[in-house]
Amino acid sequence: MTIEKGALLYTGKAKKMYATNDPEVLWVDYLDQATALNGKRKVVVEQKGLLNNRISSLIFQDLAKHGIQNHFIAQPSEYVQLVKRVKMIPLETVVRNAASGSFERKFGVAYLQPLVQPVMEFFYKSDELDDPFINDSQISALGLVSPENLAEMKRQALQVNQRLQAIFDEMGIQLVDFKVEFGLTMDGHVLLADEISPDSCRLVDKQTKKSLDKDVFRKNLGSLTTVYREVLDRLSVLEGSPE
Amino acid sequence: MTIEKGALLYTGKAKKMYATNDPEVLWVDYLDQATALNGKRKVVVEQKGLLNNRISSLIFQDLAKHGIQNHFIAQPSEYVQLVKRVKMIPLETVVRNAASGSFERKFGVAYLQPLVQPVMEFFYKSDELDDPFINDSQISALGLVSPENLAEMKRQALQVNQRLQAIFDEMGIQLVDFKVEFGLTMDGHVLLADEISPDSCRLVDKQTKKSLDKDVFRKNLGSLTTVYREVLDRLSVLEGSPE
Repeated sequence: MTIEKGALLYTGKAKKMYATNDPEVLWVDYLDQATALNGKRKVVVEQKGLLNNRISSLIFQDLAKHGIQNHFIAQPSEYVQLVKRVKMIPLETVVRNAASGSFERKFGVAYLQPLVQPVMEFFYKSDELDDPFINDSQISALGLVSPENLAEMKRQALQVNQRLQAIFDEMGIQLVDFKVEFGLTMDGHVLLADEISPDSCRLVDKQTKKSLDKDVFRKNLGSLTTVYREVLDRLSVLEGSPE
Repeated sequence: MTIEKGALLYTGKAKKMYATNDPEVLWVDYLDQATALNGKRKVVVEQKGLLNNRISSLIFQDLAKHGIQNHFIAQPSEYVQLVKRVKMIPLETVVRNAASGSFERKFGVAYLQPLVQPVMEFFYKSDELDDPFINDSQISALGLVSPENLAEMKRQALQVNQRLQAIFDEMGIQLVDFKVEFGLTMDGHVLLADEISPDSCRLVDKQTKKSLDKDVFRKNLGSLTTVYREVLDRLSVLEGSPE
């Protein structure tokens, strides 16, 4: 069956999601758009959608090869990704290997100071509430996800962290932290979804400590397109990785 | 041995702690002082120290009777409490039975809406950092307390919640939430410390929903002394409780 684009379901900060003629498949358009400050600042960034789609597709395929199932099905064109339809869990899962961003500010820890063990944080996805930081006990009390599925999200997020660290390390890049999102499949399993790209990872060059991610946009450090292109170029290391 | 007051060790928002001639005993002076906004607002409140000391002493004695060990030793006079010296763990442990305060605001839940299960939260005690909300993973990474002792703090906090709910229920009061602090004894055990009073508990009259705690001060709802006196008067229910 040829997949055909259907009704618009959801407009995100850098992606649009559509139904398709297959109820189990969603059509994702990656946008040439960057936002900061929870969407309050928004600009067009040439080729960003194309670059993020390619990076995310390569990483999702690599994770699947390494036993970490996820929603990726195919990348039929430069700006399009087909993914498995899941019911999104309204939590952002953040894994940190070194201090940066809100962790740096909240706890007064120096930028890029390594953490003795990965730190995991959850944020409740709610535009009205400004995505508040939330703990396990609050997640349970608000009924956002079952304790069993929360444990499974943590397990998978740590697996993703291990594999991403290996990939980026080979690219000469330090994975400082990243954000992932999970959904529930029709039969109730936790499945990695959303995207994995320099929009959702904090990446710094191991030698120069130069930012290779959306911090370039947040902090006005130069051309996002150039930096994302560099990440994609370095991702060619994946082509040599065994099936 | 008669306990004698020694050097000032620490000045808190509503208490001063002193060493004594016994290295295992601290002398606590309860102050007639109320603060809000993390100490930025500070006023004298007549008899508050006396009332909080009496309330806290009665509750600590009741908890001990019910198998919940704590740092209370004796109340030698109106404003003085003797407590066991412990090494304080730099965390505030909050237990919530209904929505209020930061939980109400952060998650858009209605004031006093009951929670399906008690919510537990930790805050990292740091004046410079403004006591940030912290999760288990961050606590471990920052090495604030071992995972085993954190689990023990949770166990004890839930025990305290059960007994406090029973006490206040008998007094016609709903225990909305409360904050406790723990320390480590010389031999490394987690021991309930600090105070339990209307400064650290959010209490509302079951009938009138009137605040019977520091919210009266925070929200300028009337005389703190009158309200704390009422809580102490109602605490006479404890006198009839079995040894």
